[in-house]
Amino acid sequence: MTEIETISEQRCHGGTQGFYRHHSESCGGPMRFALYQPPQAASEVCPVLYYLAGLTCTEETATIKAGAQRLASELGLILVMPDTSPRNTGFDGATGDWEFGEGAGFYVDATQAPWSSRFRMHSYVVDELPALIAEHFPADRERSGIMGHSMGGHGALTIALKHPGRYRSVSAFAPIVAPTQVPWGEKALPRYLGEDTSAWAAYDACELVRRQTFDGTILIDQGEADGFLSTQLKPELFDQACAEGGQSLVLRRHAGYDHSYYFISTFIDDHLRHHASALGRP
Amino acid sequence: MTEIETISEQRCHGGTQGFYRHHSESCGGPMRFALYQPPQAASEVCPVLYYLAGLTCTEETATIKAGAQRLASELGLILVMPDTSPRNTGFDGATGDWEFGEGAGFYVDATQAPWSSRFRMHSYVVDELPALIAEHFPADRERSGIMGHSMGGHGALTIALKHPGRYRSVSAFAPIVAPTQVPWGEKALPRYLGEDTSAWAAYDACELVRRQTFDGTILIDQGEADGFLSTQLKPELFDQACAEGGQSLVLRRHAGYDHSYYFISTFIDDHLRHHASALGRP
Repeated sequence: MTEIETISEQRCHGGTQGFYRHHSESCGGPMRFALYQPPQAASEVCPVLYYLAGLTCTEETATIKAGAQRLASELGLILVMPDTSPRNTGFDGATGDWEFGEGAGFYVDATQAPWSSRFRMHSYVVDELPALIAEHFPADRERSGIMGHSMGGHGALTIALKHPGRYRSVSAFAPIVAPTQVPWGEKALPRYLGEDTSAWAAYDACELVRRQTFDGTILIDQGEADGFLSTQLKPELFDQACAEGGQSLVLRRHAGYDHSYYFISTFIDDHLRHHASALGRP
Repeated sequence: MTEIETISEQRCHGGTQGFYRHHSESCGGPMRFALYQPPQAASEVCPVLYYLAGLTCTEETATIKAGAQRLASELGLILVMPDTSPRNTGFDGATGDWEFGEGAGFYVDATQAPWSSRFRMHSYVVDELPALIAEHFPADRERSGIMGHSMGGHGALTIALKHPGRYRSVSAFAPIVAPTQVPWGEKALPRYLGEDTSAWAAYDACELVRRQTFDGTILIDQGEADGFLSTQLKPELFDQACAEGGQSLVLRRHAGYDHSYYFISTFIDDHLRHHASALGRP
């Protein structure tokens, strides 16, 4: 059995909010994640909802700020919130820039040295973490959903699109949908993946959805007062790509809302219900 | 009109979460507070619920962690969360100890130099802040409730008990109820109030409730796994004092819950409903 270390466990909404650390094969070192077990987990296996956070965030960010445990407790969903990258890699350039490196793993499997030895968040989230969680918690691996915010929304969309059948539901808050066309992606992807832009396209939700749709409706919420809306996010590109690919999409735009967790906490319940419905927890 | 500076305002649950700064006469310098306006505040004056935070906290703590805006939005409550003390006082000993000084104002009006010139959180919370809020926001000053956590629970209880008729409702999470009898109070009160223990008693909820009850039921939630339960909190002392004074009290003990915001967020809705009912927002 793969070992995990319990950093802390606290009672929350009748269940348990935990923080854990373990050695990751994918990421070549220690990784941390938060996991919420609803009360139902005491007596049955529960579906699992993965939440991928954005730039600068950790496993604590949404755990503390999103207010997701309240309804997850009611619906009987396990919430898994991993860190956004490996930490303390010691790589030159891995810290000091909030848009690249530690805290900015972009949920890719890097192919370029030195990043390729540690920055393999795609494999970590898709394969290693679910196996670990099925081993240690009352989690039903057959019923998983995935969601995320900003860079994590990019992670959720690309992961769900690249692995048909693996997730029953997907949603995002203010996701990066076209990293090959916006500054955040144009800065990070070449360093992780090299200069061949076809490698970037394999992690671009707009490119992916044109080739292979997700079996279900994708839910996206976007604030109209989001400072990154017109430069980094451009949800209209995904709207168009979904139309071209035949993907069912609900894209909701909310006047006055920004990129923060005040926005996310406002609509988190809608996302939990979206996932619960697909995960057999209506 | 007293001026206030808007630090930030963000859309949240259909209303506005703001952070503000202003010059405080009571505290002899700048003070910060957080204020949530529910959607109803756009068209009517709303009742106000004050939330006082605990040791080490700021105006951001409960704003970010408690998850109170969701139901406040539904119930039409303005939430006011002040900082826990003046900041950057420069006083010798004001920083470096989490149990005294900045972040640990204990909601008293200090009488001992140098603290007496700045650490006057009692007057600030009871008089100055409500006046300021009535001036700048659609707040109904005649309908106020007060609550708090730990040191802030002490603040809420003592303030409500010392000012009959001023607040329609009061509640607390894991409050310090007998500061004259526990290490936190025994350390802070002499430095703020001098060696005369009768001055301390004026800020001790157990002492106060024996002399003058609050007109309404006091709601207190306490976690049984709270690490401060038996040393600093001792809710049984308040239970006994309420019985002696004839005060109506609902003291709920929750197995497994600790002193953290995972505990608070679990039961925050019950507190908001407790206040809403007394504030004409049933």
